This record gives sequence, C-alpha cells and structure tokens, in this order.
Amino acid sequence: MTNPAFVFDHWAAAHQQHVEQVLARIVPDEQALPERLHQAMRYAVLGGGKRVRALLTYAGAELAGSSRMAADASAAAVELIHAFSLVHDDMPCMDDDDLRRGKPSCHKQYDDATALLVGDALQSLAFECIAETQAPQALKQVQVLAQATGSRGMCGGQSVDLQSTGKRLSRHELETMHQYKTGALIRAATLLGAYAAPQTPPALIHALEHYSQHMGLAFQVVDDILDATADTQTLGKTAGKDALQEKSTYVSLLGLEEAKVLVNTLYEQTMQLLSGFDCKADPLRGIAKFICERPF
Amino acid sequence: MTNPAFVFDHWAAAHQQHVEQVLARIVPDEQALPERLHQAMRYAVLGGGKRVRALLTYAGAELAGSSRMAADASAAAVELIHAFSLVHDDMPCMDDDDLRRGKPSCHKQYDDATALLVGDALQSLAFECIAETQAPQALKQVQVLAQATGSRGMCGGQSVDLQSTGKRLSRHELETMHQYKTGALIRAATLLGAYAAPQTPPALIHALEHYSQHMGLAFQVVDDILDATADTQTLGKTAGKDALQEKSTYVSLLGLEEAKVLVNTLYEQTMQLLSGFDCKADPLRGIAKFICERPF
Repeated sequence: MTNPAFVFDHWAAAHQQHVEQVLARIVPDEQALPERLHQAMRYAVLGGGKRVRALLTYAGAELAGSSRMAADASAAAVELIHAFSLVHDDMPCMDDDDLRRGKPSCHKQYDDATALLVGDALQSLAFECIAETQAPQALKQVQVLAQATGSRGMCGGQSVDLQSTGKRLSRHELETMHQYKTGALIRAATLLGAYAAPQTPPALIHALEHYSQHMGLAFQVVDDILDATADTQTLGKTAGKDALQEKSTYVSLLGLEEAKVLVNTLYEQTMQLLSGFDCKADPLRGIAKFICERPF
Repeated sequence: MTNPAFVFDHWAAAHQQHVEQVLARIVPDEQALPERLHQAMRYAVLGGGKRVRALLTYAGAELAGSSRMAADASAAAVELIHAFSLVHDDMPCMDDDDLRRGKPSCHKQYDDATALLVGDALQSLAFECIAETQAPQALKQVQVLAQATGSRGMCGGQSVDLQSTGKRLSRHELETMHQYKTGALIRAATLLGAYAAPQTPPALIHALEHYSQHMGLAFQVVDDILDATADTQTLGKTAGKDALQEKSTYVSLLGLEEAKVLVNTLYEQTMQLLSGFDCKADPLRGIAKFICERPF
C-alpha cells in the first residue's frame, strides 16, 4: 500500500522549506507601513519551528488529491494562527516566557503592546489569505479554522489551562483541555488540507478526524514528556515549566513510563487507521511517526 | 428622493435592539465550557455601545436591497471585531484604561489573561459567524473584514498610534493613522452590508467607499472634539486622555472651531454624494447626521 521509495525526511524538509517561502510572501514586508509591526510579525512567524501544522495540511491535501499549490494558503494560515497563539501565550499576563524557538520571545524583542498587536494581526492575516484564494471550499476552511481558534478551540483551551494551574485534573479534564488547546488546531490543519481539493468525500474527512484526534493527543503527551525530560537548549524554550507551575500533565498524571506506552499505543492505532489507504497517505504516516518518535 | 415618513431614531433604535439579540445568540452561553471565558466575552460584547458599525452594515444592506436577516451575521461580526479591539486597547500594555461604556473594562472586571483571550476569541467568532451563513458573497465579506482588522487596518492604526504618542503629527500622518485605526472598520462595516445581498453592482460599492471614507474621518474628528470637551460621565470612558497622553488629534492640530467646521463640510459632502439615491439611502443619511451631530 505504501510507496517504498517515499522518504518522509525529504518530503518534510521540502515542505518545511516551501511553507517558509509562502509565509515570507504572505506576511507584509518590513518596509510597508506600519514598519515596526510588520517587522515584529515577520520576527514572530519566520525562520523557526518544525511547521508540524503546515505538514499536516500538505499531508491532508495529498490524501485528498489536492495540489501542493492549492494547499499553500491553508498551510500558511494554520502556521499564522499557531504563531499568533505563541506570541500571546508568551506574554507576561499569560505564561510569561522569555524564550521561544531559541530566540527572545516577541514581547521581549519588541514590547508588550507590539506583541499584542502582532498576535491580533496574524490572526486576521490567516483568514485573509484563505479568503483570497477564492477556492471552492475556502469558506468551509474559514469556518473550520475559526472554530478551532476561538473559545471552543485553542483560546478556550488556554483559558481552561490558566484556571487549572495548581489544580489536580482528572484524565478526562486533561484530555478535554488539550483537545481544545492543541487538538483543535491540529484537526483544523489536517482538514484544511483536505478541503484544499475542489471537493472532499465525507469518508475521507471522517478518517482524517480520527487521525487528527490521535495525533493531537499524542502530540501533547510527547510535549509533556519532553518538558519533563529534555533541557532548555534542546527544546528551544524553557524546560521543566510544567512542574514549576504545578500544571497537570500526562506525566504527572500517568507517570513517565505509562505516558510513553500511551504514545506507542496511539501510534499503532493510527497506522491501523491508515492501513486502508494507498501511498497518498504516506505523508500522514510519516508525520505520525515523527510526532510519536520525537527523541525522549 | 427621501421618504418623509422615515424616522432615523426609530430605525436606529430598532436595529440596535435587533443586533443586540443577534449578538446574544452568537456569543456562546455562560454555561458553555470554558465558562469564565464565555462570561467575559458576553461582558465585553453585550449591553453597551451605540452599535454605529452594525447600523452602517444594516444601512449598507438596505441600499443594496438585502434583507435585514441576511445582514445579521455581518452586523454582528463588525461589532465583535470592534469589541475585541476595545478589550485589547484598554489593557495595561496598551491604553491602560479602567473604564469602558460606563463599566469597568474587561481586564479590570476579570484579569489581563482573560481579557487577552476574550479579544482573541471574539476575533475568531466574527469570521466564524460570517462563514456559517454560506451566503453567496460571504468569502468576499471575510476578505474585506480581515483586511480591515489586520496590520494594514485597525491593528496597524493602533501600532502607528502607539508610536506617535508625544510626537506632533502632520495632518496627512494623522489622517493615515485614523484611516487605518477607525476608518478601515467603518468602511468594512458598510461594505459588508452591501455584500450581504446576493450580488452587488460595482457602482454601489464605489459610492459606499466614498461614503465610508467621509464618515470614518468625521467619526474621528467628532471623537477628538468630544474627548476635548465632554466629561467622563457623558462619554462613558475617560475624557481628556488625548491631551494627557500628548496625542496628536484633530483638535490639537486644527483647533476646536476649525475641527467643527471640518465635520460640517464632511456632512454636506456626504449628503451631496447620496443625492442620487432614493429612500433606500435614508438610513445612510440618518447615520451621517447622527455621527456629525453628536452633541458638542
């Protein structure tokens, strides 16, 4: 079913590089008014990150038979939303983090007011670049992305997270929180790719819903494992913060070993889920492996 | 050309009340998870404000022959974007204002982190509710609203404003700043109404572009006049702030009398502009009068 000649690392590197160019074109030039805001937006978006969400979009597009070019705006949009959330999350009134992707976070490099506006403007830009495509399913993409971003998605998850610091959450509460905080955008990233095709069969959307549910959960468990085990330099962001802030994590809840077992189970289930698809699912398989095997 | 039986005050009151109901339906219930965020979103959006932007949307819709119901999502969306900008503008790292619409501003009533998330989630909700309509020109509406909100619109204007505090701006610089900061959303509000119709003739869009350019400018000049002359209780927000923060305003630039003359000129030009339209333009005429004759 899979193509033995497919090398995920090459595919990922090519698409990471590509979306970087797309983003560099979409985010306004530093010379355009207001210069400082545009400079800060480029600082927050460009030259960093693994672009996992964009890869999910391109992988979803490939499964749905869409061209890479048709998925460019969506891939950029999900990265813009992700970048906006990082800028706002790092601000002093939120997680108060000085380091992001190995560089000073946006509000440290610029100032709090600029960081606030950077996040706001990146969110608008995400919807603007999808709407500009005028693609057949662009309105559906706006809808999915907006839902994933708002109070019943990423922002809502962040709100629950803030209020649960210092509380011991049940596994159900923890999963709900992360489904909002991380899972919703991972789901949107994958679906937006599928909606980049002129039309998308409901069965394919259904499979991608399952896929992204598993990946969203795996992604968070791995993140918690890394926060507990890796050092700041490796992560490119402050390590050990969860324990310091007394946050409930999968590691604090399940223990390190059981958390690793959970990741492996999710990986096996995902491969099973994709077994009915041909080589068009190879990028999705590769991303699953990449997410579940991040070194720990 | 105008309908002598049209009473703007009745039309405005009916539409203000109506959009309030639409907003109350669109912003998630306080019982929905995450409760605190939804509660704060409702606090920030409902029960306040003159809803000038929503009125512009309904007035634009009326000129384009759209039903009121078809314009509901757009009217709500522009008010959501406006509310999000007020919440973020009031935050300590921006204008640091404790009072809004006669009540404690969102970050005072809740906290800074919640206010940040409220603004973020209100922005997403604006695009979500437009996309949900699946209306023929909804994608165009998303595009116009996103442009008006982002770095070459409202957020960009706010950035220029922050950097020009304490500087003396030329009239051209001041107009550019306000065109971004206030004018862009006023333009979008009016155009979104016109795009609520199944189709909109370019000539009508052209007229509305002119109309909203005049109104955007008039709105800001009046705002500057009120800030310099009215008291805090009348305004429902802190008065005299511009002078205190040494901001360039139309009053500081032109003097109070010449600022008033400018408002009157803009009003006359707007009436001239609308003279070719029949009674469908009566709401637009009424809004122009309302904006230009706010008591001062």
